[in-house]
Amino acid sequence: MKVSIIGSTGYTGLELVRLLNKHPKVDLEILTSRSFAGEVISDIYPSLREEVDIKCENLDIDKLAENSEIVFTALPHGVSMEVVPQLLTKGLKVIDLSGDYRYDNLETYESWYKTHNSPELFKDAAYGLPELNRVEIEGSSLVANPGCYPTASILALAPLVDKGLINLDNIIIDAKSGTSGAGRGVSLGTHFCEVNNNFKAYKVANHRHTSEIEEKLGILAKKDISLSFTPHLLPINRGILATVYANLTEGIDTKFVLNLYNDYYKDEKFVRVMDEGKLPEIKHVAGSNYCDIGLTVDERIKRLIVISTIDNLLKGAAGQAVQNLNILAGWDETLGLDNVGLYL
Amino acid sequence: MKVSIIGSTGYTGLELVRLLNKHPKVDLEILTSRSFAGEVISDIYPSLREEVDIKCENLDIDKLAENSEIVFTALPHGVSMEVVPQLLTKGLKVIDLSGDYRYDNLETYESWYKTHNSPELFKDAAYGLPELNRVEIEGSSLVANPGCYPTASILALAPLVDKGLINLDNIIIDAKSGTSGAGRGVSLGTHFCEVNNNFKAYKVANHRHTSEIEEKLGILAKKDISLSFTPHLLPINRGILATVYANLTEGIDTKFVLNLYNDYYKDEKFVRVMDEGKLPEIKHVAGSNYCDIGLTVDERIKRLIVISTIDNLLKGAAGQAVQNLNILAGWDETLGLDNVGLYL
Amino acid sequence: MKVSIIGSTGYTGLELVRLLNKHPKVDLEILTSRSFAGEVISDIYPSLREEVDIKCENLDIDKLAENSEIVFTALPHGVSMEVVPQLLTKGLKVIDLSGDYRYDNLETYESWYKTHNSPELFKDAAYGLPELNRVEIEGSSLVANPGCYPTASILALAPLVDKGLINLDNIIIDAKSGTSGAGRGVSLGTHFCEVNNNFKAYKVANHRHTSEIEEKLGILAKKDISLSFTPHLLPINRGILATVYANLTEGIDTKFVLNLYNDYYKDEKFVRVMDEGKLPEIKHVAGSNYCDIGLTVDERIKRLIVISTIDNLLKGAAGQAVQNLNILAGWDETLGLDNVGLYL
Amino acid sequence: MKVSIIGSTGYTGLELVRLLNKHPKVDLEILTSRSFAGEVISDIYPSLREEVDIKCENLDIDKLAENSEIVFTALPHGVSMEVVPQLLTKGLKVIDLSGDYRYDNLETYESWYKTHNSPELFKDAAYGLPELNRVEIEGSSLVANPGCYPTASILALAPLVDKGLINLDNIIIDAKSGTSGAGRGVSLGTHFCEVNNNFKAYKVANHRHTSEIEEKLGILAKKDISLSFTPHLLPINRGILATVYANLTEGIDTKFVLNLYNDYYKDEKFVRVMDEGKLPEIKHVAGSNYCDIGLTVDERIKRLIVISTIDNLLKGAAGQAVQNLNILAGWDETLGLDNVGLYL
Repeated sequence: MKVSIIGSTGYTGLELVRLLNKHPKVDLEILTSRSFAGEVISDIYPSLREEVDIKCENLDIDKLAENSEIVFTALPHGVSMEVVPQLLTKGLKVIDLSGDYRYDNLETYESWYKTHNSPELFKDAAYGLPELNRVEIEGSSLVANPGCYPTASILALAPLVDKGLINLDNIIIDAKSGTSGAGRGVSLGTHFCEVNNNFKAYKVANHRHTSEIEEKLGILAKKDISLSFTPHLLPINRGILATVYANLTEGIDTKFVLNLYNDYYKDEKFVRVMDEGKLPEIKHVAGSNYCDIGLTVDERIKRLIVISTIDNLLKGAAGQAVQNLNILAGWDETLGLDNVGLYL
Repeated sequence: MKVSIIGSTGYTGLELVRLLNKHPKVDLEILTSRSFAGEVISDIYPSLREEVDIKCENLDIDKLAENSEIVFTALPHGVSMEVVPQLLTKGLKVIDLSGDYRYDNLETYESWYKTHNSPELFKDAAYGLPELNRVEIEGSSLVANPGCYPTASILALAPLVDKGLINLDNIIIDAKSGTSGAGRGVSLGTHFCEVNNNFKAYKVANHRHTSEIEEKLGILAKKDISLSFTPHLLPINRGILATVYANLTEGIDTKFVLNLYNDYYKDEKFVRVMDEGKLPEIKHVAGSNYCDIGLTVDERIKRLIVISTIDNLLKGAAGQAVQNLNILAGWDETLGLDNVGLYL
Repeated sequence: MKVSIIGSTGYTGLELVRLLNKHPKVDLEILTSRSFAGEVISDIYPSLREEVDIKCENLDIDKLAENSEIVFTALPHGVSMEVVPQLLTKGLKVIDLSGDYRYDNLETYESWYKTHNSPELFKDAAYGLPELNRVEIEGSSLVANPGCYPTASILALAPLVDKGLINLDNIIIDAKSGTSGAGRGVSLGTHFCEVNNNFKAYKVANHRHTSEIEEKLGILAKKDISLSFTPHLLPINRGILATVYANLTEGIDTKFVLNLYNDYYKDEKFVRVMDEGKLPEIKHVAGSNYCDIGLTVDERIKRLIVISTIDNLLKGAAGQAVQNLNILAGWDETLGLDNVGLYL
Repeated sequence: MKVSIIGSTGYTGLELVRLLNKHPKVDLEILTSRSFAGEVISDIYPSLREEVDIKCENLDIDKLAENSEIVFTALPHGVSMEVVPQLLTKGLKVIDLSGDYRYDNLETYESWYKTHNSPELFKDAAYGLPELNRVEIEGSSLVANPGCYPTASILALAPLVDKGLINLDNIIIDAKSGTSGAGRGVSLGTHFCEVNNNFKAYKVANHRHTSEIEEKLGILAKKDISLSFTPHLLPINRGILATVYANLTEGIDTKFVLNLYNDYYKDEKFVRVMDEGKLPEIKHVAGSNYCDIGLTVDERIKRLIVISTIDNLLKGAAGQAVQNLNILAGWDETLGLDNVGLYL
């Protein structure tokens, strides 16, 4: 299948190129880039040399439409919406990695992001978290690929929220992400000497992903949810670990909850529930499309601690996008995603 | 004043040596080490070469007593209690960096640690957190230097607990520490390739420091407190950052709480409360004895997020021990502790 | 083809497991481990969970022989020679990753390593650097997989030595390796806090790989070579970069030398010669089996600087071993080795 | 003494502020900054909060002259020369940290840098490497603080060159620096994700510091020297390690050379020569003003390997500048420079 990428030279774009190049059913056609049009992708990322030597181009919707069946858009929020409606009009299917089509509720989007130009597409866009939303994705022509933090957070909480086992007023998500989540743009905040040896929280109580997590968990719970979400910056390249706290509504133990999770995710290739007493670590998933989940009930205080971890660039972005491609195309969901984590 | 260190070759011992060597009123006399007796400290840590070339010795209580007025014990939990009573009997003052004399309640100690051999000393030992306990420290001959996580956690929460502004049933402390907190002993868990590029939680719902934090905050609150404390391992050498969540009992805003903190710590040299909108980072305090605190009220959900950060080896161990020395000796509390953080 | 691994739980073993598990023509049969016999490999490396859940066993030569056609030995130097002759006697083909069978010259081996128990195998063993030695490997039943530093160093120098373009008395190799090269064994030297923020040389003028590089380049040059080789330890997990200095015997320029290298390696999939003005970086090859080479003639002083980089665990160990497997088995040399570097 | 800093908000500026703030004989007066005029230095570097809360100003030569006796200029090459002559005209003494006044030979400067506007100052400027040039510094009103790489390289080679023990045609300096050497300016090359897990050479055969090293060693040797200097970028914040190779002109051994070095530097507080068999590491000097030097004669091939290490921001920049201040002012050379390395 002919596939193209709009915005191919950021870190998410690089990962899409890397994955799609090895995908057994994909022909990578057009790579667009505003900053690097005219340059060969392997000059920008020499790791790709002799593997992907495609020249990046300026965006040309007609040319894209002629040469692609499915297009990935890896553009900043607010920029995606300038392009996606045109692609759909041309009959293309789109997997969009921005936040622009992730919401059901326009008001929520506009209060956390900005004015939207094509909210009429919201009802057709599928939220691309396959573990919760596979059927909707299959039938859609616009998949809104989830945010990295929401992927880790929602997968950690979905079974509890779905089954009504926790108090919805006291959910706390303390999340930590590698620096690639900030993108490849240069800024003082991503200077090596500022990040190395350091650790900090950022956007406390006002990160946009809060609203995405709240909306999607609220749909599962069938009621509004407000929660605490605190992102932190880790001095590593890849990976998110979310530590989630929730108060149990009943006196259940770790075994009971683990059984629930194992059952909930039993058919999900990319979710691995850890055995009792074991905990996920970023190095177990970095380089793979897995989400690992471990949990403990603190029986002293009837609080559940769930820890989930993903590679923010894979299950949190490009890997999940390829998983969505596989669903859209009717292929085995794991095609092109069979690497285990590198560990080292 | 003549000062000696028992257990001088671990990372905390190194920091004690480094600080005391520059202390204007201290003569560093004897360094003991079980593993490195007979070796010169600057052969173990060449950073000290031509500065501190003292030979480490086996422990000899009589010799220590003859040559010291105050002794620091930087020994593992359970080992300290074998030594401290003997030192006190000789008339020495002791600053103990283990957990052995930190507790008021024997039962708590024994349920989280092990059987104690000298609980009769508990009532005389002062918990060495100067910001809360200065008067008691001044009059004591045994100072139990606080744990690293408890220092960061208690300073973050003390004003709220003291003033009764938060719900005591829903305190969550999500803490992250650099790897030097694990000590210099070799183990797979501290192998470079296992820590680098990685991040993980450990001892979830059962870390010993939970009980130390609960006891000390409980004394402030004048009631029992149970809380969640989750430690994580950061791929950096130095520093702890604690993200603390608490539900407010009243509708107060960020400004109100910041005023409270500024007032509470107004005479404390080593606590810096950040201005509204600013947050602490580990690199702001690493290399110094400061504890930086920043906070935000999430008014959407009436929850307070307090973030505190310290250097685990300094304010969390050796620096605070020197601060306690200064108090015991009646000196300016900042002597020998005037370095700012290195930032880089 | 049925393949087994002896010594499967070190970092090289992990990489062999990871690669062979995805190899399209390999069935991974037996994993042996002295330290972890009885444990499932994915409990030791949870990144493998649900992918490779084989239980590690004690070494049983008969069982190995019944269940394998080719065996990888990832054992320490001196231990391999206890096992390899037995495997060969059973009719197995062996790819040995230790130093025990890399040498032609027994005296060299014994002066840099230890007394050898089976030097009669030297003449049959093929030195497993395919770019220089492919034909010999094809016909061998014992392949001695090269050391990591020798792989990077020899590939950097082979065209020059082969063509007689440099002074053989003044070769200097200044090499830098990630910490995984030190293996997974615990020691103070691999403690995170000792490696992080640090950089050092080690085994200056006496690292064993010096002799391996000298022997193999000497064979190419048809005369004895003595050179300087200095290894350094990088605070990263993966990767080697070697900076090689050599005095030119003739007045040739960068273009001339680049043409020579391009020609020399024109059929080699896993060697990439960089264009003029571009230099290799570890992140371009980490996670892949590539060796990237860049070079510059410093015309001011008629000295050539060649820089080569590999992933020490892949082209420097497990990847090259799989490349040798492909050659032994008569398959496409790139099978199972098609991942590009991760870059991030 | 009243001291001011021009260009106080880069990493070198930060270190000057940090050191001068604790210097017992210095009053820090004016901090200038083009980028941050009007901002308080401790808002830019919160590590300084409550220690140095001076507001940065635009450059005003008259005001500087009224309020300072000595001025540090921490400006980019080419910018310093716009300012330094004006400062000298006002009767100020200047310690300049740029490359603008380091050279004796104008042609060399102009061929590696750019056209100079005030070469008449070259003859009065003292090259600020106290270990080689103390007398000249004492009598000067303009001290040109050496480059970071030249400091490490020249101190490593000076005894050999001075005593004529090595072949001057075959000197090779393979140097590795932490990323703070690149300054605080944002660029893709200093993005955390590009530097972390990576290692690379840069400016091979054309780094400007080559010419500075050649000129200063040439003065010692009393003849022209051309050498190889290759800088590499380390994924750490602080520190330089230089590995230096030289061919011995006579059959001397390690002990002989170590004796020479110990004698050569016997009165130098900030140079520590390591005992035989020991090697310097960056963590031994980071945070201090020391230069550690270790060496080995490879008797197999009559080549000497000298390894030197410094903190690039201290002995390689701000620390050496303070050392020069102490010399200019006639104070003990170690004032304000008494911190040992942090090790961790």
